[in-house]
Amino acid sequence: MHKPFNPSDIKTLSEVELEFLCEDIRENIIVNCAKNGGHLASSLGATDLIVAIHYFFNLPKDKVIFDVGHQSYAHKILSGRTLEKLRKKDGVSGFQNRDESIFDPYEAGHSSTSISSAMGMALARDIHGEDYHVIAVIGDSSFSNGVAFEALNNLGTFGHKVIVIINDNGRSIGKAVGSTNNYFERFRLSKGYLKLRSGYRKIMKKYAFTRWFYYFSSAVKNFIKRRFVRKNLFSNMGLYFISNIDGHDLHSLERAFGYAVNAPTSVIIHVTTSKGKGYPYAETDEAGHWHGVEPFDINTGKPLVKAEPNTIGWSCVYANLLKEKMATDPKMVLINPATMIGSKIDDLLSLYPDRVYDVGISEEHGAVFAAGLANNNIHPYYSIYSTFLQRSYDEVLHDIVRMDLPVTLLVDRVGVPEEDGETHAGIYDVAFLMSMPNIAIAMGKDQMEAEALFDFSEIYNHPLAIRYPRGKTTKMPQAIVKPVALGQWKVEQKGEEVALISYGPIVNDLLNRYPEYTIINAMFLRPIDEKVLRSILVYPYIVIYDIYGTREGFASFVLNALNDMNYEGKVKIKALPNTFIAHANQKEQLSACKCTLEDLDEVFRELK
Amino acid sequence: MHKPFNPSDIKTLSEVELEFLCEDIRENIIVNCAKNGGHLASSLGATDLIVAIHYFFNLPKDKVIFDVGHQSYAHKILSGRTLEKLRKKDGVSGFQNRDESIFDPYEAGHSSTSISSAMGMALARDIHGEDYHVIAVIGDSSFSNGVAFEALNNLGTFGHKVIVIINDNGRSIGKAVGSTNNYFERFRLSKGYLKLRSGYRKIMKKYAFTRWFYYFSSAVKNFIKRRFVRKNLFSNMGLYFISNIDGHDLHSLERAFGYAVNAPTSVIIHVTTSKGKGYPYAETDEAGHWHGVEPFDINTGKPLVKAEPNTIGWSCVYANLLKEKMATDPKMVLINPATMIGSKIDDLLSLYPDRVYDVGISEEHGAVFAAGLANNNIHPYYSIYSTFLQRSYDEVLHDIVRMDLPVTLLVDRVGVPEEDGETHAGIYDVAFLMSMPNIAIAMGKDQMEAEALFDFSEIYNHPLAIRYPRGKTTKMPQAIVKPVALGQWKVEQKGEEVALISYGPIVNDLLNRYPEYTIINAMFLRPIDEKVLRSILVYPYIVIYDIYGTREGFASFVLNALNDMNYEGKVKIKALPNTFIAHANQKEQLSACKCTLEDLDEVFRELK
Repeated sequence: MHKPFNPSDIKTLSEVELEFLCEDIRENIIVNCAKNGGHLASSLGATDLIVAIHYFFNLPKDKVIFDVGHQSYAHKILSGRTLEKLRKKDGVSGFQNRDESIFDPYEAGHSSTSISSAMGMALARDIHGEDYHVIAVIGDSSFSNGVAFEALNNLGTFGHKVIVIINDNGRSIGKAVGSTNNYFERFRLSKGYLKLRSGYRKIMKKYAFTRWFYYFSSAVKNFIKRRFVRKNLFSNMGLYFISNIDGHDLHSLERAFGYAVNAPTSVIIHVTTSKGKGYPYAETDEAGHWHGVEPFDINTGKPLVKAEPNTIGWSCVYANLLKEKMATDPKMVLINPATMIGSKIDDLLSLYPDRVYDVGISEEHGAVFAAGLANNNIHPYYSIYSTFLQRSYDEVLHDIVRMDLPVTLLVDRVGVPEEDGETHAGIYDVAFLMSMPNIAIAMGKDQMEAEALFDFSEIYNHPLAIRYPRGKTTKMPQAIVKPVALGQWKVEQKGEEVALISYGPIVNDLLNRYPEYTIINAMFLRPIDEKVLRSILVYPYIVIYDIYGTREGFASFVLNALNDMNYEGKVKIKALPNTFIAHANQKEQLSACKCTLEDLDEVFRELK
Repeated sequence: MHKPFNPSDIKTLSEVELEFLCEDIRENIIVNCAKNGGHLASSLGATDLIVAIHYFFNLPKDKVIFDVGHQSYAHKILSGRTLEKLRKKDGVSGFQNRDESIFDPYEAGHSSTSISSAMGMALARDIHGEDYHVIAVIGDSSFSNGVAFEALNNLGTFGHKVIVIINDNGRSIGKAVGSTNNYFERFRLSKGYLKLRSGYRKIMKKYAFTRWFYYFSSAVKNFIKRRFVRKNLFSNMGLYFISNIDGHDLHSLERAFGYAVNAPTSVIIHVTTSKGKGYPYAETDEAGHWHGVEPFDINTGKPLVKAEPNTIGWSCVYANLLKEKMATDPKMVLINPATMIGSKIDDLLSLYPDRVYDVGISEEHGAVFAAGLANNNIHPYYSIYSTFLQRSYDEVLHDIVRMDLPVTLLVDRVGVPEEDGETHAGIYDVAFLMSMPNIAIAMGKDQMEAEALFDFSEIYNHPLAIRYPRGKTTKMPQAIVKPVALGQWKVEQKGEEVALISYGPIVNDLLNRYPEYTIINAMFLRPIDEKVLRSILVYPYIVIYDIYGTREGFASFVLNALNDMNYEGKVKIKALPNTFIAHANQKEQLSACKCTLEDLDEVFRELK
């Protein structure tokens, strides 16, 4: 175990000591991820780079923004934070967090925003007349997202200096997709260029005053770039570009940083690293299973989570349904934005390479691509985490919903975000989907209902979102699935005085807990079942309980319907508050939101 | 005036006849835009290109998707539609529209989606085993948006052929910004390349069998590309690239199309055109004032709209406030995504080049850039149309709202979309902003309230959205502005029996129309004024009237609050339905939504 050390101590270390420090940090990351789970592979790969940044730059005066932030564990350690309770309640967050440390100058949301935010920080710095560096550290996969491109496109004509470090491990989350990655790949492997570069290096190194030129495309532009670096995306954009830096060689990194700080304008440093470095299981993982991990045994690499034979993960429930459909329907197309492993559908990519599309971190493109298919008589399934669906708000509204196209969104990981915290909450989607016309929204309480909803999606020729949470559900035997109709609710149980409306897996708990009340299972969050709703207008109390979305979503929609129906009783709502929920486990988060079953008990007590 | 003609007739025309046809179409576009308003300049620029497409391809079997669609007027004419009632009720839409014609295979939403949708259409075609071309026509400015980049990035490894035509007029909406545009610019002007190209052309043209090579970067790759075309973004991505085609030369276009259809995989054709071609005022307009126009006099180019001396446009109201602030606050930064002219702030760019940022069609980047600034003690203003704010949903939620940063969104063009129709509606923003925690939302009823809200924004250190509609308001004399507080409502008038809650300019009409009722002006849509709301709980009827947003937004929020306050009277809601509203004028659209004042009268009648 490490003792916390003074962040500025690093400046006094020798090169050998720095290398040992990197090893120590990696060990600490492995030990703590084995215990707590976390983003292991990317953090291991970025450790040397982060040590070099802390060694070279003047942190926290210089500001380092890590894209997304899940690779910043070494940065947390170097700024005196412990990973002992990584992503646990009251422990450090899995991302950068301004409240945690003055070494965290920004808190990224989703991927690919670091260049834009660094530009904002840099402009503000110059307006204030301050003097420090703003550094964005971004992975290669994040480059497949449009925001990074928009930022780069603006950076070319932006007069305020930022240093962008591309941490290129060539695979990031799962297999890196798209041509940007091919581009990096080809650039690295372009032998003609490397050969010349090597000769060039020999000459240039002789003369100290020319070394500066060696790393810069701006200089190269005047000499070899005309022939050899023309194909470079960044130099096209008028940006300084330092390429091919070994991200595990502290000396090379230091030299690159030296050139970068002296450059007159913004600089891109392209650094290559090995994801998972220092932990063999993660190093050899081509698929990306070690990107985000549950607690594991360090020696075997096997997960520590106990097998529960009678349960099945919600992602697996839908993955199995997708597998069956892919196998039987030759026109079925599945689209996913870089979460194939998380949603347990990664094996489908190799089975059906022409009908399964991992579009990379390109949620917007994925939605329009789905719309194009649906507009041409293919009914695609777009598998996407609730939190990432936020990125395609405009395209879901305009391209899918407005044209009333048969696209089924399989919205994974709805509900409170657990260890990932605020930026991965799956609680806003219902409210924002409700702000769009007509798209149907559904969620089943168990495997049987999931299958029924999936069956429904196959015959429903309009936009549909089927939601499912993290975690597991009871495995059910294969049985004949009772079909569901659009907007159908189920009266699970009849009682008196109070009608309780809810949906999703929590309904199972409600049935056990409240045998005395009428319990409605709203399988469709929209449209609602008017007939069932009218049937409960006679109750003096209607309680709406939602732990998978904010009050502005389902609860508000039902309240509106009840108002239209001139309901004269009392409506009590217990739904997730519209807020940001700090990382913790599910129960702790629901408790912080006053949305546990005990909180619901309290609502009933107050009725009496 | 043209008679409608048979779309396939075009195939029989000679080259000279085609050129005359282009002239005729341009004249028709000018005449009809002068009468109806519309997207004049881009449609004139694209006319020859569209004629060539109709001549060469087999429409409607081959599918042409125009990015956004506002440049497709010639396509409408060539497919037998008249522009006589362009963008008027029951006339043709200003964009592609599947209901209008089988020649419109897709309906774009916002910019930059055409490549993604074409990819979806192409994959579907190949799954169905069909045989036709899918063609995306996209302007150069649309390339600054991330969706186009995401699509291109996926296109490089996509095995289904699409033809992408880049219509590069070098300026699009306003001054084209960002490095992508510089890139096109430099590509065109690279003299060394052009010189060689010209020599190369001479040689290659001698031999028919080598002509194919002439246009292709894939072929060029093997010969001159190594030295001269390396810097090309598209060839980096592994795409075939046909460059420098004169978009007004039908013969060149035809040849380029010929090579494109024979290419084994996807092709990018880079076509240069002159925006506004054929109408001198539009041709010489560098700034972009002729992009979208109101009715005008053809001879003078002057708008036909009568000057109304006692009114001022809502955009001007906020533009003036911004101008004043830019002049007096040296740390004020203004950001806008390519709608500087529409929001009347284009002159600020030259006045304050280092504090005013037109980020291009990069709404996501703009939001994160604003967050970066705000996170570093600058309070930026992000001026953006309501409909384009949809594009930055995720970034507003994660980067601005989650970090509780002082960014003021100036949300222009809220309310029904008028002539632009469905894809430009400003009616969803309140509901989707309400799905995010905490961001304050405000809208004033007149110039004085606008000024008060702007003053409020200057001292409010949290996320804030100030909305304002299209159209004009009464010009008010300079006066001392009464400050407003967060969440403050105004009881404009006291009456009996009914309390009517509304906001925005329509409140002025309500005051005249309903002198007998209590009228509440909810200047803040969120947070609400609990004190005022509690004061009206005694009324038997509360009516909520909203013509600037859907029912899921403000009305639902107030209904929830009333429910929490145990209000026992009746709540009646008259708000925009959550739907898509076809193009027409404002009154026609409100009437279609049953949201006119006459419809509100009906609500009151029913209460009695």
